[in-house]
Formats: sequence, C-alpha cells, structure tokens
Amino acid sequence: MQHKKHRPLILVTNDDGIDAKGFRELIGIAREFGEVAAISSQIPMSGMSHAITIKVPIRVRPVLEEEGFTLYQTTGTPVDGVKLSFHTLLGRRPDLLLSGINHGSNSSASILYSGTMGAVMEGAVNHVPSIGFSLLDYRPDADFEASAGVAREVIRLVLEKGLPDGICLNVNIPSVPASEIKGIRFCKQANGYWREEFEKRTDPNGHSYYWLTGFFHNREPKGGGIGTDEWALANHYVSVVPIQTDMTAHAFLEEIKEWETSGIKHGA
Amino acid sequence: MQHKKHRPLILVTNDDGIDAKGFRELIGIAREFGEVAAISSQIPMSGMSHAITIKVPIRVRPVLEEEGFTLYQTTGTPVDGVKLSFHTLLGRRPDLLLSGINHGSNSSASILYSGTMGAVMEGAVNHVPSIGFSLLDYRPDADFEASAGVAREVIRLVLEKGLPDGICLNVNIPSVPASEIKGIRFCKQANGYWREEFEKRTDPNGHSYYWLTGFFHNREPKGGGIGTDEWALANHYVSVVPIQTDMTAHAFLEEIKEWETSGIKHGA
Repeated sequence: MQHKKHRPLILVTNDDGIDAKGFRELIGIAREFGEVAAISSQIPMSGMSHAITIKVPIRVRPVLEEEGFTLYQTTGTPVDGVKLSFHTLLGRRPDLLLSGINHGSNSSASILYSGTMGAVMEGAVNHVPSIGFSLLDYRPDADFEASAGVAREVIRLVLEKGLPDGICLNVNIPSVPASEIKGIRFCKQANGYWREEFEKRTDPNGHSYYWLTGFFHNREPKGGGIGTDEWALANHYVSVVPIQTDMTAHAFLEEIKEWETSGIKHGA
Repeated sequence: MQHKKHRPLILVTNDDGIDAKGFRELIGIAREFGEVAAISSQIPMSGMSHAITIKVPIRVRPVLEEEGFTLYQTTGTPVDGVKLSFHTLLGRRPDLLLSGINHGSNSSASILYSGTMGAVMEGAVNHVPSIGFSLLDYRPDADFEASAGVAREVIRLVLEKGLPDGICLNVNIPSVPASEIKGIRFCKQANGYWREEFEKRTDPNGHSYYWLTGFFHNREPKGGGIGTDEWALANHYVSVVPIQTDMTAHAFLEEIKEWETSGIKHGA
C-alpha cells in the first residue's frame, strides 16, 4: 500500500490473547503499511488496564518469523509487551503502535479498564503515535470487514499527519455492516460508568464467591450527548476520541488553588 | 475530630496489601472522621492500575469488625475492591474514598500504573469524592508522621468543600521530616515517563526471563517544571494534582476535527 523507500516499523498488540481474530486482522492490515512486530499474551488480558508485572518475571519468545514480520508471545500484560518491545525486542521505539482490533467496545469510561487502550497510552507516554481499535462485537468470530476499512483509513491519516506527543486515538467501530457505517466522527469521551452488579455464588465447600458483571450507564442527556463517542456509535458512526496521558483537571486546578489561601499551609 | 450527628461513611483501600503500614495509618486517620469500611487484597497489587478481575471469581470476607469499623480482605484488585464495596459490602456509595498511604511515589506518569490511584479514579467515576495518598518512601517501615498531618488537612478540606463530579486528588508527600515540609501545592502532572530497563536472566533450564526495572525521566525544562508535582516534591512541598476521569484531549479535538474535511468519510 505504501511504496516509500523507508517503510515504517509498526508494533501491533492487543488484550484478547495471541489467537484472537481481531489481532490477526490488524496484523494483516499493518503489514500493508510497513515492517511489523506483533506481541500478545498467551491468555486474554481484557480488563488489565495499564497494569504492569512487578512481582513475577516476564517471559517472551518469538513464535513466528517471516520477511518483515515477527510475532512474539509473552506472559506479560499488554503494557508489559509494549515496554518489552520498545526496550528489548525492537531496540527502539516503532514509528506507529496499533492495538486491537478489540472484540468489544472501549468507548466512554470503558477506556479506564481496557488493556487494549492501556497499551495505546503506553505508546503515547513514549511519544509513539498510537491507535486503539475496538469493534462493538464481543464474539470470537466477529466480522471485521468494516473495521478493516476504518483501520486502513485512520492508519493512513496518522502516518501522514502524525499525532501530538502524549496524545493517542481511541477508535470504536459500530457492529453494523460496512455499508451502514455513515462515516467517522471525532468525539469526546461520553460521561458514563459501569453499574457493577456482582453475581454471588456458593462453592461446593459452602463459601461464597463473586463474578463481576454489570452494565454501562450513560450519564449524558437524552439523545445520548451529541459529540460524544456513545452518540456517534449509536448513530452508526465510527467514533475517534483523542486521549491524553496528562490526566490533570486543568480547569479545576485554577479553582482549587484558592484552597491554598484558606489555611491549607501545612508546616508540621 | 468531627462531632456532627451524621458521621460520614469512609471507604479506605490501598494497593500494598492488607498488612501495609501506610494502610493501617490511613485507617486510623479515617476513623477520626467517620465510620470506616476498609478493604485490601491479601497480596500487594502495586502496578495493577485500573485492572479488574474478569476471568476468575473474586472472594471477599470480613477479617475484623468493631464499632464503626470493618476490615475486609479480598482476592481482587484495588478497583475490584472499590466496586465490591459500593455494590455488595456497603450497599451504597460512601461519602468519601481514601486510598493509600502508598509506600512510594505516584507522581507524574506513575499515576498510569498505580493501583492506589486506580481505586481513586474508580471512586471518581462513581461520583464519590476520592483522594489518593502516597509517600515518597518505598520501605515497609516508612515513617508516616508527616503524611498523617497532610492527610488530616486534605481530608478536612474535601469533606468541607467537596470535589466536582469526575475529579479526584492525587496527593504525594516528600520523604522528609514533617518540620521540613514547606506546605501544600496544587499542581499539574509533570510530563515524564519511565525509561524501562529490563533485567534479563536465565533460569536453571537455560530459558531467559525478564524483570521489569527502570527509572523515571522528567521531560520538564531545567528546574523541574514549575507548577508540576515533580517540582513541588523536589522542593519539599506536598503535591496535590486534581485528576479527571474524562481523558479526552479537548484542545486537540478541535484541531483533529479538521481531518473530517480531508476525505476521511468512510462509506463502505
């Protein structure tokens, strides 16, 4: 797809495990654009967020090596895999980091829990242009045809235009046929949260245990909050939210500084 | 310390495990202000970020029950513990969530990896005023005397003034005697990252494995970036960074919307 002398080096990762269909799809797309190193965990790492492995050592090994492509398997989290790739496997930061294609949404507050987006934010902290892709379909055999078209479009734009340091993209794709996708919208993260319901069960020894379940609750006004990712997705648009690794609440910082004058000086 | 008719219900958690000295200190301080439920994991959960447990069930049990205080132990992550508390153990959202006192810094980019701050952000997503405390001393027997004074001051202010929905506080305390702390400064998150060095070793069977190590690199200008948490801490101030759960890069969103006009419409 690109025929420059210097083909970019692209790192591909995910959080659904090395055998996930969406991961294989994204690798295939990335290989159209450049040299590819891909890394994933043996087991699914959904919900691992930005977790890193501190207390146990990490293993990693190449499982497939071809011209212009190496696939690694690791025992670590998605963020571990990114760090290992930058430092040890590639020996340098890649030109682009792609994560996904996730089986299931990472829109709104779900970004907080997402291993897919944890890896993407780790790229952004390291000033590597980084994009996470998620399809709103949890099924292992989900259809990634529409997602592939979206991914090519967004990758092409980011390779051409770049991204500011510390900012990455959270791309979510509605689960509708490609012909029904109305376009791509740049959005803000919808204000929402997961109402967590735990399912309580009793084991054969009489001890209780809990399964995490729950459903997403959108706090945006009726109509879904125009301009938010949830609104875009509900209306069959692809949502692209630019995400920053600076988590400071800058507007409120000016306000809270007034607390300093109200006797908060702590001397001893 | 407070003698209102209605004493607040305070949830205390951490990521250093149930036996950590800083956790016990924070519980003691919280009990001066209200009814306390505390929850922690059996094992340390440092580096767990905002991770949740999806693939295995979660256990939780009370290990200590006194007048106005219950301590729970869980197999889950810090965020699991917060969710379980809100939903199952307390049956309602508490009036305040405290996390820590962490053994070690959670300033600048370290917030991304922090289980302490993962729990705090989970509180903020649920619109519970939430504060994370971290002392810049990793030792198990760290001296929390100065931290205790800081925690009382910040808790008092937050109970009095509240916090906006979706915003929480990341409080870091320099590792100096209380008499050398110059005051509290409200700050932005310093622009920095961890330069990850992996230590490669070989196991008795001849297979390699890696330990995550690394050191923090501050990208701020010489002098440390006045107004940042790193600057405040280096100058013996307590740093308080207001953190938002909306991770949208709002300023860049306006800019990137121009991409929509450059042919990004995706029809099929």
